[in-house]
Amino acid sequence: MKKNIGARLGLYPTPVVLVGTYDGTGKPNLITLAWAGVCCSEPPAVQVSLRKDRYSHAAITERRVFTVNVPSKKYLTEADYAGIVSGRNVNKFESAGLTPLKGEVVDAPLVAEFPVSMECKVTHVLEVGSHDLFVGQIVACWIEEEALRGGGKVDAGKIDPLAYMPGGEYFGLGEFLSAGYTVGRNLIKK
Amino acid sequence: MKKNIGARLGLYPTPVVLVGTYDGTGKPNLITLAWAGVCCSEPPAVQVSLRKDRYSHAAITERRVFTVNVPSKKYLTEADYAGIVSGRNVNKFESAGLTPLKGEVVDAPLVAEFPVSMECKVTHVLEVGSHDLFVGQIVACWIEEEALRGGGKVDAGKIDPLAYMPGGEYFGLGEFLSAGYTVGRNLIKK
Repeated sequence: MKKNIGARLGLYPTPVVLVGTYDGTGKPNLITLAWAGVCCSEPPAVQVSLRKDRYSHAAITERRVFTVNVPSKKYLTEADYAGIVSGRNVNKFESAGLTPLKGEVVDAPLVAEFPVSMECKVTHVLEVGSHDLFVGQIVACWIEEEALRGGGKVDAGKIDPLAYMPGGEYFGLGEFLSAGYTVGRNLIKK
Repeated sequence: MKKNIGARLGLYPTPVVLVGTYDGTGKPNLITLAWAGVCCSEPPAVQVSLRKDRYSHAAITERRVFTVNVPSKKYLTEADYAGIVSGRNVNKFESAGLTPLKGEVVDAPLVAEFPVSMECKVTHVLEVGSHDLFVGQIVACWIEEEALRGGGKVDAGKIDPLAYMPGGEYFGLGEFLSAGYTVGRNLIKK
């Protein structure tokens, strides 16, 4: 039996990503977000949503580019940290011991240590409420070589990403269950 | 060392949700999506992205409402199924053995068996490319009572949701790691 708890978020799980930008002085910065998701296949695009007063909001608005970096579980502390402090006051890369690499296509920094980094160009901005939604078209996707299988396939389990549960908890990724478009076929009436 | 695999999706993990609508004849329908995410806190809102030719796209466009239903892991088969077949031809609720419940606020069906269902009103539509992004403001959130702790807090682990890894694999949720805004404080310089 379900209970109505009102107008609250109940999407489980959401990804944990660190969005990379350069600020007005060229300093690399990061912000940790869980309000993010895929929003298009062709062209591949993701949305990231930020409050207007966040330091990274101005950087994305100015340069119209950003990176999306997926930490593996062992970077939980660094990921949590980059969501607590502001790049106005600190160099988060330095404090967290992370290495900024300039994007190959866009003018935004990648996190060298993380297994996945996407370079994105802003194509749309939507004012939703407390948050502005930025659509980023993916123009490059960097994957740790150890997580690459033959034929350009990604061994997703080796990414070992974090998952966020709205309300405020980090979880790890669990066991592989199945490939998509497989087990559901059992329910198709012949 | 990372390798650039080109303009490809690398967001891990994404949620797995079944979006509920009524079609033009009033038949309840579902579509399984992993292209979804949170995009605002106040008001709480989620985005779901669908191809224009999907049967549910017309239903959302027509009634401007939908539900977002989060399956627990034991509904993997039903979740995968509702992403394979089209509601043009079948009643997916019936074929999957799921029970449609009319939303309390919006004119769209909830999945009775799933631990979480959100009722959403469309506030924005964005044409991104192959997919249109629908922003749904959450006007009600139904949670299985067994997953509710004191004070309206949700025991996220009891939701036991699926996670999708772009490329095409379902995973379970792993172990609880930490609360947010906690472990990262260790990196704040005193």
